[in-house]
Amino acid sequence: MTAGEYKKASLRYKELVEAELDRIFRGPARDVYPRLREAMFYSIEAGGKRIRPCLLLAVCEMLGGDAASALPFACGLEMIHTYSLIHDDLPCMDDDDMRRGRPSNHRVFGEAMAVLAGDGLLSFAFETMLAAALKSGSRGCLEAVSEIADRAGARGMVTGQAADLECEGEGIKTEEMLRFIHRHKTADMLEAAVISGARIAGADDGTVAKLRRYSESMGLLFQITDDILDMTGDPELMGKTLGKDAEADKLTYAVLLGLDGARDAARQAAEAAKAALDGIPDADYLIATVDNMLTRSN
Amino acid sequence: MTAGEYKKASLRYKELVEAELDRIFRGPARDVYPRLREAMFYSIEAGGKRIRPCLLLAVCEMLGGDAASALPFACGLEMIHTYSLIHDDLPCMDDDDMRRGRPSNHRVFGEAMAVLAGDGLLSFAFETMLAAALKSGSRGCLEAVSEIADRAGARGMVTGQAADLECEGEGIKTEEMLRFIHRHKTADMLEAAVISGARIAGADDGTVAKLRRYSESMGLLFQITDDILDMTGDPELMGKTLGKDAEADKLTYAVLLGLDGARDAARQAAEAAKAALDGIPDADYLIATVDNMLTRSN
Repeated sequence: MTAGEYKKASLRYKELVEAELDRIFRGPARDVYPRLREAMFYSIEAGGKRIRPCLLLAVCEMLGGDAASALPFACGLEMIHTYSLIHDDLPCMDDDDMRRGRPSNHRVFGEAMAVLAGDGLLSFAFETMLAAALKSGSRGCLEAVSEIADRAGARGMVTGQAADLECEGEGIKTEEMLRFIHRHKTADMLEAAVISGARIAGADDGTVAKLRRYSESMGLLFQITDDILDMTGDPELMGKTLGKDAEADKLTYAVLLGLDGARDAARQAAEAAKAALDGIPDADYLIATVDNMLTRSN
Repeated sequence: MTAGEYKKASLRYKELVEAELDRIFRGPARDVYPRLREAMFYSIEAGGKRIRPCLLLAVCEMLGGDAASALPFACGLEMIHTYSLIHDDLPCMDDDDMRRGRPSNHRVFGEAMAVLAGDGLLSFAFETMLAAALKSGSRGCLEAVSEIADRAGARGMVTGQAADLECEGEGIKTEEMLRFIHRHKTADMLEAAVISGARIAGADDGTVAKLRRYSESMGLLFQITDDILDMTGDPELMGKTLGKDAEADKLTYAVLLGLDGARDAARQAAEAAKAALDGIPDADYLIATVDNMLTRSN
């Protein structure tokens, strides 16, 4: 798959996801208290690359599943990702003023409503996915929701955020802790995307195991390139405040390995991600996602 | 059922729930980051009356279901209730120092960790319930999780909290808004308890409809007695700061109707709750719950 074909396929997935998010917020979310719905939708429509839902749809289609029936799960995953950004930006957390190129949620709606917008999105993700799982009646869909709950939850993403928070005082001291934090903060949600897409398509356990290894390397690749971009990126392209890690004297892969070392590590993670796909047919999009991640500028 | 028998039955349910919560936090929660798990468990073990999980188990047993298989759902519901208290107590929300007779979560663990403890508990509730639903393979269990997600979520409890928050500046102006807020803030979670218990037991739609009416009246009864206790109760028995409503010049049922009027309204709601149970056999515990609520001092 060429870079152009990858862009085109990603755009198709992104448009599917955004049309469905729009439909959900005009339909099922009608009964949400108006100001709360506004706060939730503000951060949802702010966009971003929608990497996680695109991956979910791509994996599901790759394995013979139907993108349309996977859409509620892709949207649920994006809602969970978005809630985590809203809470992460709060003054008591990272205290970020900008997100996805716009003022962060609490800058517009106030801290209390931002807490509730996050709570609302996390809950609404499960409302949306469970309604779809009930409607489909398929075990794979229930497994997908369960996978997303596990990876996004107290033993997954939230554990990564808590570990990151705890290290803020004294700094991340060891490479082991750096890996632990990013495994949970970053890789877990990519794994949720890939594995839930596979579960919806009814994948066998062998395929799921390969895709778990792919996700783990992809998570590492994502984090290393994020750390590099935090040091060298263009804040306008990234749509968020940069250089915060350096300012906070935080251990990152770019600090740990140096910029050149980090670039080497990124290439190695990319190779490992591709190698994990060995024997899975039609994995072009997943391979192109790796290449795109390696060369991304935002 | 006498008051003594009601107390004994409630104690049995409470002990089942607390033993299972303990088991979950020693087992499946082992992989939660230690400080996060501590913060989550601090608020879980602080206790409270466990009204919602007890109701869930009682309804499930009343309809011929098995309390043991309903336990993960009862615990999930209690985790969701607990997360809502942690976020509600935050400085940017109600700014409460005490909860369930102990310093509130953020007073002990700091604001950022309290946000994550809430996020962790909400997520962990779904992790716990979905694992149980997958294991059981029963449609009723999946319906129960979906019901809990809907009532606790963006169109349920969180909508009630957002409406309450919005009214803080100018105060709740109308009885309609007062009812809307409390329907969602309070009644929705009681409805989640009752209906999910019924779904796990495989109840028919007629029974579910009656139980929805019961829950609605119970929610109103709960809120009116809460408002009365906020004005007249003993802070030590209640385990939280009282008189905050009056201080904040907030419209409550006790303010709207006067203390005597509120007591009358509570009696009417109690009658309506009992009337809704007409034709449901073995509803002794549910009836006793109404009487207990009407005469509670904490």
